[in-house]
Amino acid sequence: MQAIRRMITSQALAPGDKLPSIRRFARDKGVSPSTVVEAYDRLAAEGLIRPRPGSGFYVAALLDPTDSSAARESTDRAVDPFWVSRQSLDAGRETPRPGCGWLPPDWMPLAAVRRAIRAAAKMDDATLVEYGSTHGSLALRRMLVRQFASEGIEADAGQILLTSSGTQAIDLICRHLLRPGDTVLIDDPCYFNFRALLQAHAVRIVGVPYTQTGPDIALFQDALATHKPRLYLTNSALHNPTGVTLSPKVAHRILSAAASHDLMIVEDEIFADFEPDRSVRLAALDGLGRVIRIGSFSKTLSASIRCGYIAASPELVEALVDLQLATGFGGPSPLAAELVLRTLSDGSYYRHLGSLRSRLARRRREIVADLAKLGVHPWTLPRGGFYLWCRLPDAADASEVARRALRDGIVLAPGNVFSVAQTAADFMRFNVAQMNADVLRQLQKAMDQVLTGSE
Amino acid sequence: MQAIRRMITSQALAPGDKLPSIRRFARDKGVSPSTVVEAYDRLAAEGLIRPRPGSGFYVAALLDPTDSSAARESTDRAVDPFWVSRQSLDAGRETPRPGCGWLPPDWMPLAAVRRAIRAAAKMDDATLVEYGSTHGSLALRRMLVRQFASEGIEADAGQILLTSSGTQAIDLICRHLLRPGDTVLIDDPCYFNFRALLQAHAVRIVGVPYTQTGPDIALFQDALATHKPRLYLTNSALHNPTGVTLSPKVAHRILSAAASHDLMIVEDEIFADFEPDRSVRLAALDGLGRVIRIGSFSKTLSASIRCGYIAASPELVEALVDLQLATGFGGPSPLAAELVLRTLSDGSYYRHLGSLRSRLARRRREIVADLAKLGVHPWTLPRGGFYLWCRLPDAADASEVARRALRDGIVLAPGNVFSVAQTAADFMRFNVAQMNADVLRQLQKAMDQVLTGSE
Repeated sequence: MQAIRRMITSQALAPGDKLPSIRRFARDKGVSPSTVVEAYDRLAAEGLIRPRPGSGFYVAALLDPTDSSAARESTDRAVDPFWVSRQSLDAGRETPRPGCGWLPPDWMPLAAVRRAIRAAAKMDDATLVEYGSTHGSLALRRMLVRQFASEGIEADAGQILLTSSGTQAIDLICRHLLRPGDTVLIDDPCYFNFRALLQAHAVRIVGVPYTQTGPDIALFQDALATHKPRLYLTNSALHNPTGVTLSPKVAHRILSAAASHDLMIVEDEIFADFEPDRSVRLAALDGLGRVIRIGSFSKTLSASIRCGYIAASPELVEALVDLQLATGFGGPSPLAAELVLRTLSDGSYYRHLGSLRSRLARRRREIVADLAKLGVHPWTLPRGGFYLWCRLPDAADASEVARRALRDGIVLAPGNVFSVAQTAADFMRFNVAQMNADVLRQLQKAMDQVLTGSE
Repeated sequence: MQAIRRMITSQALAPGDKLPSIRRFARDKGVSPSTVVEAYDRLAAEGLIRPRPGSGFYVAALLDPTDSSAARESTDRAVDPFWVSRQSLDAGRETPRPGCGWLPPDWMPLAAVRRAIRAAAKMDDATLVEYGSTHGSLALRRMLVRQFASEGIEADAGQILLTSSGTQAIDLICRHLLRPGDTVLIDDPCYFNFRALLQAHAVRIVGVPYTQTGPDIALFQDALATHKPRLYLTNSALHNPTGVTLSPKVAHRILSAAASHDLMIVEDEIFADFEPDRSVRLAALDGLGRVIRIGSFSKTLSASIRCGYIAASPELVEALVDLQLATGFGGPSPLAAELVLRTLSDGSYYRHLGSLRSRLARRRREIVADLAKLGVHPWTLPRGGFYLWCRLPDAADASEVARRALRDGIVLAPGNVFSVAQTAADFMRFNVAQMNADVLRQLQKAMDQVLTGSE
């Protein structure tokens, strides 16, 4: 292969030229014909050469693929809900990303994931190459059913639909329930991608200020009366970005108000596994009728093995199955579901969750102390998870701080990307697992620049 | 673990009961405490028991998850575009599925896929657990760029967006380009899920009769003038369901008409690798401006490792990146992209494609002969692929035949699910790789019942 590569890159062979016959090349190089067949096949698979049936192999059009997308990215992009996603996802692996929404790899259950992948190589043929069933892996759905039962949520496996991510789960629900012009309630602040997602649905977005016990219930009730929203989208456990836990009292009032206004609720459980003990859940209080539960395994298992779920009424799940078929043909990868199931069933996974929670609790305390030295203070002290929702000193503009930090290669998550009303200009969400001394120095520098107005 | 399972299933331990302490249980059973820790952790991961911090393990609410979805499925469901998908995907693995759109596992490159999975277990940490970049694996996009170049299609890696399936690729494009009430052209007949997908977008669907050389070009031109469609969605190579290859002349006329009516075209390349040699492509003639190319690896590599792609203008790709972020947070699984890349680069994959094409050619000939004995004849003889689009004898109603066959556990694909105008009532699409003597007998029986009107 190297010999041919050299001939092509040195232009001894030009695009369109015929390669030596397998027999001749084998004789010239003193190797077996099967070695040459193997080499030609690999080069063909890479697209460097092309076979013409009955005629031999030819050099393909040569080119060194460039990536125009990299050049188009710039630090001038508007600081909108996409800003943090794009910067976090496309940053080089060495770039500190205190603004991102996931843990660094060494906080994840790598050994269990690798074991699951090794075991998957021995799986039955059909799971490896076929589409899988419309609802997704029955074994994984059954495991979820048992987990839900232990939380007081009754469901059968037919009430669960596996999806390819938590976000896709919400998107499917919105596609089914919403029409352009409908109104949707979200928390203010809330996960920035809720805003991006709802914008894609062309719905009216109404924010309800979030308090230390959940949404401001008086304003929530007002919003229902005034705007007649179709849907409320929220995290009950470890709300993103604040880390707040919904109180039972507010949960009960949300459900009462929802019942009298025929409001549907999507309860996003994506951070549930970070809770030290289980807090109140709308789906546990009210069942899976008005409340739709969604979740994924991205935060504690793997975001690369993409798999999420929807738990809802049987009728809704049936409608969503059709919609998922129409728009994605089938649910999540059967291989992905199998990897999730095997990792969840791995003895070490449960221990991993326990030590992860302790490690995060320590890290939160450390970072709170570190940030305090910069005059940055959390709005609340979360019971779990990796976020701190903090106010910057002297009302520093967080979007400006984020822009400055990006020049030094640090990705931050400025407050207003989380705020419908744009009332979080001096807030910043920090991911404690992605912070270190260097990040803190750069943050200090960026804040100083913004506060002194220097370039 | 077995001991505890027995205690739970025999109800010696009831839900809520505390399990023996780790030390006591280890002593009782004569095993090490670490063995018991491992067993308890696994049972906790399975949801059978639950830990209470500082207090020990308790039996979780016991239940044998049922699956209500299975009970709801029935043979009475309307024979609409979802009918074939649902029946094919949810059929038991032993059910013959001559109506389905994929090859049986033993026709797939299983050894190469298993090698790729084994290698993936040793991948770097970040690829295993992080989200990955917004456009998807650069290495896989570069390989696609080289492949496209050899087909005369110029693109750089930034013009390619990886998606989680070919269908999701089309869906993203439709979400971006279409608004409810827009008109979309499709072939009649066409892949039934195009109809389901477009219905989900609430657009007007106009069908153009498909001929042995592509869409009827006079009617295509008429449709452009009359309906001003925004988009035309088609397969150029081995059109589904007919297996027809677009002729260069018709391709040129489609593009001329599209240019004068500002029509966008999605060229779905999902069956491209089945062609014995490459036929004309709209994207090769016209470039990636008006024409958007989509594809996936589901048909020849694996449908379980879900990965598709979009190749389009840089501007369109940028808009689709945002839309994919908003609606799915990130593209396909980085692990899936890696598995696809490794399988494509495996020396054996290219040989697999070659032998697959020969094997399918032989099988098509055999099944054509077998079907002829039943009076079932293909409308055309495809150059490649696994479909035969056939007319049933004596104008037998294919939907009725499919209903009868389903009672005997055979999933068929009746013609009208492919037809907007419902003009294919006596057609059936057969997947030659899923046919055998038993299927042929059942087909004969179902046709006899329909033609004689017997129950």
